[in-house]
Amino acid sequence: MKHVRIEHDGRTLEGTLSDETVRAGGLELRTTEVQRWLAPVAPGKIIATHLTYRSRAEEYRMATLPATPSYFMKPPSALSAHLEPVVRPAGCQFLNYEGEIAVVIGRRCREVTIDDALHYVGGYTVANDWGVHDFRHADRGSMLRVKGQDGFCPLGPAMVDAADVDPENLTVRTFVNGEQVQQGHTGTDLLFSFAYQIADLARLITLEPRDVLLTGTPANSRPVQPGDVVAVEVDGIGRLENHVVQSPHELAQVGEQPAVSAQTLHVALAIPEDEAARRVAVAT
Amino acid sequence: MKHVRIEHDGRTLEGTLSDETVRAGGLELRTTEVQRWLAPVAPGKIIATHLTYRSRAEEYRMATLPATPSYFMKPPSALSAHLEPVVRPAGCQFLNYEGEIAVVIGRRCREVTIDDALHYVGGYTVANDWGVHDFRHADRGSMLRVKGQDGFCPLGPAMVDAADVDPENLTVRTFVNGEQVQQGHTGTDLLFSFAYQIADLARLITLEPRDVLLTGTPANSRPVQPGDVVAVEVDGIGRLENHVVQSPHELAQVGEQPAVSAQTLHVALAIPEDEAARRVAVAT
Repeated sequence: MKHVRIEHDGRTLEGTLSDETVRAGGLELRTTEVQRWLAPVAPGKIIATHLTYRSRAEEYRMATLPATPSYFMKPPSALSAHLEPVVRPAGCQFLNYEGEIAVVIGRRCREVTIDDALHYVGGYTVANDWGVHDFRHADRGSMLRVKGQDGFCPLGPAMVDAADVDPENLTVRTFVNGEQVQQGHTGTDLLFSFAYQIADLARLITLEPRDVLLTGTPANSRPVQPGDVVAVEVDGIGRLENHVVQSPHELAQVGEQPAVSAQTLHVALAIPEDEAARRVAVAT
Repeated sequence: MKHVRIEHDGRTLEGTLSDETVRAGGLELRTTEVQRWLAPVAPGKIIATHLTYRSRAEEYRMATLPATPSYFMKPPSALSAHLEPVVRPAGCQFLNYEGEIAVVIGRRCREVTIDDALHYVGGYTVANDWGVHDFRHADRGSMLRVKGQDGFCPLGPAMVDAADVDPENLTVRTFVNGEQVQQGHTGTDLLFSFAYQIADLARLITLEPRDVLLTGTPANSRPVQPGDVVAVEVDGIGRLENHVVQSPHELAQVGEQPAVSAQTLHVALAIPEDEAARRVAVAT
């Protein structure tokens, strides 16, 4: 079963999706007739994994693969949905997509084994972990400025029940203006399985129903431009599409401003740190 | 006006506090008769500032004071309350208190000036930003393992209306077993005012009613032990007390384990980085 939430004539409706038809609140709509998609769940917390796909570690030319994952959070105010715009702030150049699979917790979860962890999953949906890496220097690793902005966590269009998904046989693909730019497979490419990530987090943190875990992105996250359309597809789960727009507002002169650092270039363009430092030195 | 939430005979009640008397749900209770205090608000997001008090920057012997603040998040599942225990996980030594003043957002807030920012504050409460620094090496700066654990964000006992508080004339003090260990004043010791922090965050992130901002801690955050009682006091706002207990469970062997790194010692004991590195080298 695929679950959706939509806005229709100003009301929020919960419903289901099948055969390109949404059934919600007594309505039956073609997907093309949906006025506004909402994220299929409203999570209390959104936790994201820094690095899970082998291809991304290789892209960064990491000398050794990480022995364990690490995590950061995105605020609930970053939540967005299928077909919503993603806003690039004024003065920023490095707004990167990151196609991901999102795990939605179904039952309260604390101190579970890796073997049991997937029993606590309610479903899966598609995510794009947007980030504006021009603030990379300013976060001290927390990612709040880079990845916490309003609209930077679109989910959807639908959440698929866990019973209908084999989480170890999923392919995630990202497309920019129709051209494929990312691909990863959960059976062959993950350094840390979804079950591992859940059990690891739940040692110290209670995961609640509707909490969302963004499970990492494969290689080739890159900057996109206003006007670009980015779609993330997971076979059997769905296709999440968003378009980039430029903010009409100047950024207020409070706190850190966008800036190009070696760290920005290293991460946003996936070039080696020494090459990134060289380019910054040449430019400044 | 001081606002509280309590649990009474299994029900959650909202009420007020004055003259050591709680009035909630038709009841009138002495504070000593409260069965269980709850955090005075249930925030959608909890954002914390890395470094705001000059005394803390000096304690770390930072060569230059930071030009702008940076932030991290604590999950809503970390929320706790007055008199609730704080659990030190098995194998950990560096469970540190950090006495803080918490700003509670009152009205939705995005793109506000520093001059206007305080108009969006609903009230103030007392916080303790607990962290278990044995995981300092494992977070890549996000603080999720260090500071995200269940119970690591007690707030309360009461939230005081913004109209009743002068946020530029507050003194925060922390006591361990009755002995004062921290002190800071918002008028003289802050590198970044509350208004600055709100305006900075709200450039990119919508702050919602009940969201909580932990505004940083003064010098002398230090490890405490099971059995210790830690109280944070802010004149005119309240006194938040919690006691430390040891976890009865071994930590599951998933992911990062507690470990003493130079970074741990540098932050948890506030000793210089070279001295911390020397001590780790001697111990290992």
